[in-house]
Amino acid sequence: MDQVKVGLVGLGTIGAGVAQILLERGRAFGPKVGVELLLARVAELDRAKIRKAKVPAKLVAKNADEIIDDPDIQIVIELIGGIHPAREIILSALKKGKHVVTANKALLAAHGDTIFKTARKAGRCISFEASVGGGIPVIGALRDGLAANGIQTIFGIVNGTTNYILTQMTQADKTYADALGEAQEKGYAEADPTADVSGADSTHKLAILARIGFGMRIDYHKIYREGIDKIHLEDLQDALKLGYVLKLLAIGKRQGSQLELRVHPTLLPMDHPLAMVNGVYNAIGISGDWVGSTMFYGRGAGREPTTSAVVADVIDVALGRAPITFSKRGCFSSKPKMARLMDITKIKTRYFLRINVIDRPGVLAKISGVLGRNEISIASVVQPEWRHGKLVPLVMMTHTAMSGHVRRAMRQIDCLDVVKGKSRLIRVEG
Amino acid sequence: MDQVKVGLVGLGTIGAGVAQILLERGRAFGPKVGVELLLARVAELDRAKIRKAKVPAKLVAKNADEIIDDPDIQIVIELIGGIHPAREIILSALKKGKHVVTANKALLAAHGDTIFKTARKAGRCISFEASVGGGIPVIGALRDGLAANGIQTIFGIVNGTTNYILTQMTQADKTYADALGEAQEKGYAEADPTADVSGADSTHKLAILARIGFGMRIDYHKIYREGIDKIHLEDLQDALKLGYVLKLLAIGKRQGSQLELRVHPTLLPMDHPLAMVNGVYNAIGISGDWVGSTMFYGRGAGREPTTSAVVADVIDVALGRAPITFSKRGCFSSKPKMARLMDITKIKTRYFLRINVIDRPGVLAKISGVLGRNEISIASVVQPEWRHGKLVPLVMMTHTAMSGHVRRAMRQIDCLDVVKGKSRLIRVEG
Repeated sequence: MDQVKVGLVGLGTIGAGVAQILLERGRAFGPKVGVELLLARVAELDRAKIRKAKVPAKLVAKNADEIIDDPDIQIVIELIGGIHPAREIILSALKKGKHVVTANKALLAAHGDTIFKTARKAGRCISFEASVGGGIPVIGALRDGLAANGIQTIFGIVNGTTNYILTQMTQADKTYADALGEAQEKGYAEADPTADVSGADSTHKLAILARIGFGMRIDYHKIYREGIDKIHLEDLQDALKLGYVLKLLAIGKRQGSQLELRVHPTLLPMDHPLAMVNGVYNAIGISGDWVGSTMFYGRGAGREPTTSAVVADVIDVALGRAPITFSKRGCFSSKPKMARLMDITKIKTRYFLRINVIDRPGVLAKISGVLGRNEISIASVVQPEWRHGKLVPLVMMTHTAMSGHVRRAMRQIDCLDVVKGKSRLIRVEG
Repeated sequence: MDQVKVGLVGLGTIGAGVAQILLERGRAFGPKVGVELLLARVAELDRAKIRKAKVPAKLVAKNADEIIDDPDIQIVIELIGGIHPAREIILSALKKGKHVVTANKALLAAHGDTIFKTARKAGRCISFEASVGGGIPVIGALRDGLAANGIQTIFGIVNGTTNYILTQMTQADKTYADALGEAQEKGYAEADPTADVSGADSTHKLAILARIGFGMRIDYHKIYREGIDKIHLEDLQDALKLGYVLKLLAIGKRQGSQLELRVHPTLLPMDHPLAMVNGVYNAIGISGDWVGSTMFYGRGAGREPTTSAVVADVIDVALGRAPITFSKRGCFSSKPKMARLMDITKIKTRYFLRINVIDRPGVLAKISGVLGRNEISIASVVQPEWRHGKLVPLVMMTHTAMSGHVRRAMRQIDCLDVVKGKSRLIRVEG
């Protein structure tokens, strides 16, 4: 039985899980997967984390360099996260002839090109199944299982923190602030939740999926992004009455030679497969020209599922499959051209609108007039309890309309004398 | 760019799809997947199918042997289905040094051991992603994506024909016979639907998934099996009122050193992820000790999705990954021991019961007495419209009970003088 020695950098939540499974099960993997995995060295600067992870003292390296310089180690697992020093560790490991496994989506989204190039030059590979969808093997499915297809759409809930918050708002009528507080208490959200609630984390993941699925380089800064931090409970409740559920979606669609890439709160009909994905679960819908619609569902974050994905990658590398994949697949090569992203104002969806109006004769005519002049037609209106002279919320669903037209219409509507405050809009899909 | 020559045996529905995609896209795959696929030879005895598939005449071989004997062909795709001559073609192709790709679940379930052994001896591989779940890359996910896990349960809708029939019964109140007729008209069911409606096809697929997931050899004849051909519309309607949906499930669970493997109509709560899988769609839930619950969803049969899976396998073989997988993984080796299957009478689930009773004083007491003596407790009763002296259906849900106990109780109940006809029972999961 072949043995492969593995070095691990970072003993945080995921790193401790990976250390545990490799120590407990690394040799026992042999008969099942065809290779024994030996955790040879571990680097972690925080002594408390080392104690907590119960890694034998003899495995603890002074620093990451000691792992990278160890000629016996064939695979380096990077699980410290963030850009620095993760980037330097990965590049240096590749240059020293190690294969690399990582879950670092922020780094891959920002520096994927440099990392892929360094790996190619070194004749080594980098695997990152754990960077998207936690334990869901979605990168493998998209890259290998659906390889025969021209990928048409990628449509996913790829952030467990925001899905937990939105589920709490929907099911328990909590405000955004309360739901966020609860998520933080339970460890589902960071003390600073910005990366999750702003949608930044979802754009990193969309950039990774889009590169693999559409075979183009992606400048993730250009992905249109709205977070969930501006979501009002009342909008969510009104949408629910209309049969719609709110999700933070990462959406990628091929539109001719362009790509439509966007991350934003999205209303989905209740019977949509993604509408039923609740709590910290993730699900990614992928459609291809031959396979049709597929969906991949599972726990999107957390120690156990992410560890599952990291170790699957280590096995794939140790067996020699991942190096083939990495060296052969176009998406990892220097070939992909930079994707041209469709202007968000040109994107067409349906819309949920909330406009606070003063109940006066002709108010609905005024608003529908503005919408009509902007080529937006109304699919349904939730009749408010009209109270003459009072402020009432007018909730509408539009038919498919162009984003730019809707924004212009809303600016015009917000200038009407019968409208108070800033109107709100949420895109609708499915 | 490497080129790999492929021979195709069988130009039925799937074969024609595979021929089409290889002819249209085989060379274009190069930059994307890293290898060009050349359809070199096609064998099909039915001239009409050859014309329909629009395969150039120069590619048509006299017979399968001409493909197997062609030294330039590296991969043989077997898509004729059935046991003979598919078995002989596959064995002979392997012995002649070809890798094999197939979608033939019946053959793999019955003769997997012989085929795997022949492949190992020849130093070649056999890939069969398309044998389960149509276009859903579930074998890859189970074998590779979840490789780090001890697999605990496999829980799937793996037959599109029966799921279409049950969906029609549930959503359009069609009888079994009418729904089957419609499925046949639409081409979703064969003229002889036995393999699908009897659950045999699902047991083949469960046997394949269980071998990979649990790493044991499976005698698929020993898998407990009930089809959907005895399902009454009224049971399905009554269950729906209680909030349950009927699905034909393939269930595999690890129970200590034994496996619990069974295929039968199963009621699921409406909010269960599999309850929402309708029509010809398939979905397979897999849970592992690290990843938790996952689910894989997509079109479970038909030309396009199955072609997607076959071609993904061809790419995997052509890149040299599948040969590594096949030679290294324990589940394909000679090592797996034959699984000990749990006796169906020992399996515990909840039950839906329908008993036709004559409304007389004390009838409920008599029936609940029999259930109680057999250690079965009642969770809920749907009160029939009692009409003194008339036959009324008594519908009940039990708490978890042992299958053997429930069967014995039902035999006793059916002997009661207040009970007419044979009572019916359906297992409940989730």
